[in-house]
Amino acid sequence: MNTMHQTLTVALDERSYPIHIGCGLLGRAELWRPHLNPKMGAVVITNTTVAPLYLDKVLATLAELGCPAFSVVLPDGEEYKSWETLNTVFDALLENRCERGTTLIALGGGVIGDLVGFAAACYQRGAPFIQVPTTLLSQVDSSVGGKTAINHPLGKNMIGAFYQPKLVLADLDTLDTLPPREMAAGMSEVIKYGLIRDPAFFSWLEQQAAGLMHRDKALLAQAVYQSCAHKAEVVARDEREAGERALLNLGHTFGHAIETGMGYGSWLHGEAVAAGTVMAALLSEQLGWLDQAAIERIKALFRRVGLPVDGPWLAATPLATAQRYLELMRHDKKVSAGILRLVLLQGIGQAVVSADANDAAILQAVQAGLAVAPSVLSVPPTQI
Amino acid sequence: MNTMHQTLTVALDERSYPIHIGCGLLGRAELWRPHLNPKMGAVVITNTTVAPLYLDKVLATLAELGCPAFSVVLPDGEEYKSWETLNTVFDALLENRCERGTTLIALGGGVIGDLVGFAAACYQRGAPFIQVPTTLLSQVDSSVGGKTAINHPLGKNMIGAFYQPKLVLADLDTLDTLPPREMAAGMSEVIKYGLIRDPAFFSWLEQQAAGLMHRDKALLAQAVYQSCAHKAEVVARDEREAGERALLNLGHTFGHAIETGMGYGSWLHGEAVAAGTVMAALLSEQLGWLDQAAIERIKALFRRVGLPVDGPWLAATPLATAQRYLELMRHDKKVSAGILRLVLLQGIGQAVVSADANDAAILQAVQAGLAVAPSVLSVPPTQI
Repeated sequence: MNTMHQTLTVALDERSYPIHIGCGLLGRAELWRPHLNPKMGAVVITNTTVAPLYLDKVLATLAELGCPAFSVVLPDGEEYKSWETLNTVFDALLENRCERGTTLIALGGGVIGDLVGFAAACYQRGAPFIQVPTTLLSQVDSSVGGKTAINHPLGKNMIGAFYQPKLVLADLDTLDTLPPREMAAGMSEVIKYGLIRDPAFFSWLEQQAAGLMHRDKALLAQAVYQSCAHKAEVVARDEREAGERALLNLGHTFGHAIETGMGYGSWLHGEAVAAGTVMAALLSEQLGWLDQAAIERIKALFRRVGLPVDGPWLAATPLATAQRYLELMRHDKKVSAGILRLVLLQGIGQAVVSADANDAAILQAVQAGLAVAPSVLSVPPTQI
Repeated sequence: MNTMHQTLTVALDERSYPIHIGCGLLGRAELWRPHLNPKMGAVVITNTTVAPLYLDKVLATLAELGCPAFSVVLPDGEEYKSWETLNTVFDALLENRCERGTTLIALGGGVIGDLVGFAAACYQRGAPFIQVPTTLLSQVDSSVGGKTAINHPLGKNMIGAFYQPKLVLADLDTLDTLPPREMAAGMSEVIKYGLIRDPAFFSWLEQQAAGLMHRDKALLAQAVYQSCAHKAEVVARDEREAGERALLNLGHTFGHAIETGMGYGSWLHGEAVAAGTVMAALLSEQLGWLDQAAIERIKALFRRVGLPVDGPWLAATPLATAQRYLELMRHDKKVSAGILRLVLLQGIGQAVVSADANDAAILQAVQAGLAVAPSVLSVPPTQI
């Protein structure tokens, strides 16, 4: 099992790159070699949680390859996906005289990957970078496709770039140390692929949920591979989200409102996406596109992997809360000419981008998707 | 004369864009129309010097086109090409709920163009932008080609992106209000094109220097057109500076050392490039590539347009100064695997990128290119 290793390619002409998925990949020097230039060196950028677990292993591999390297260890958490943290990265790169050929290696979850990718996009107008995702969420979603960004107090991922890595190395062994809550958050994006374009995968996830949450490596390998295959296919066809790629944002506009409204770091991204996906499903139901049975299947699967299905209150009443959601959603990047474009469902496995929902319908869906009591206002979501 | 209008194209496939050069262009709504989406609106970003002169004219044109717009007025100066100023732009965009389809219009010189271009590159992962350069330097160089950036205390243009505008509108009438010192600084980049690839243009500039500095519009139109034609041709062949485009950096590595060493805003970019170009010429002479007569022609032309030809001292002795230059030059983006790659001259009109010069040769060239007395340490360069 430990030699399990699959490879996918994100096909983007001269910017194509491989995704390696398997066990023990951090130490597989031959996978790193083609994507590093030992003359130029590398910097491993990680956080205080991941550094004690995997930094030495990565540095040992770089040493084996004769690639000089140093590391930058950032604080851990969505609240550090900020302007200030990005600047500390630039300071470190310049103080260490990194050149534009120095490879930036993002070792961590989605926050590290997004921030380091954006740092690489901007450093001397573009340095090479490698994604080494160590969470399920980053392995199945954020490390692939070149979306990089930092947050702004007025909106998530508002400052960023489309900038592709040279290599994605998803070592499934790093999931061994992932807290249960983050494991669940990652499943949110796995389930997303089933919901938007693969009903058979959704059914398979319903069958294998327990085994996946017990971190059966063979099952995880299948789930990560299938998710990355979907992502790679969509990104290759629509790198800059002119069309189809927007489907990958199912639940994200509602979810970003939750994340921003609750303050970064309170709800995990995957948790917010789960509750947001339920709201998108309820809105789809209002439009007559989705039946009650599908809604129940979606909620049941989220619940089985330990994800919240009810959104938090952001104000004293459900209506005021819904109005706050709508206000926050209007800041979303998918807004065009003032019109909210949402990803909705016409069935399990069939997502569409739609501007059909008016404000009244959105307010109603948010209220229908809220927790019954306001007590969740300041309480973290259910954990498994 | 006032209807004089020429157009060039920067040929980059689907990212191609026109450069309009002429008089009265700010008010020519038909030139703007194809590149704006009135539904999405626009924001004009300028500085405190340019705003009172040209902001109303641009806003009037946008109003004529039915394009809602607001403006952001930044402080003027290279020292504001910073992280902090960039953040104030993002704050304004988000507070005004700008979408990713909002067009950012850079109205000003090189600092505004570089900073606004980088803001556009990053805002919601890429918003459209238009360059309206109002200085000679930005009309002939920085507004064309998509190099955008901000400075870092440890190096100029260290944080940035390659990001092309949708349109460059070089209105020669805006040069009427340009201070003489900035006019001279712009000539530095005009002369550069002659030096690196067009000996006939260099000779023409020698003949027309007086008329250009008196701002004869027909001569300026020729100089700006010829400069933009060179830039557009080079950029179309090598957008991301993998090769030929590096030649456009003649004098810039030495020049950046002057700008950084003296503190941003003390020497103008064009002034530093002039003194830096003389150092590059002296180094070329040491290598036996350039004769004394060519050096004298270069210096004479710089002097005739009011540019400094001697570099400032950055330390108490010429040797210590040269060592400081070298240290600053090592931070340059053109450094690769620790080797300084410099643009040198094998004749007037013939530049090459070279790693042939060792540290000793560079130290010697810097010292040969310094002002005779240390008094210039804190004195601005000669003005016309």
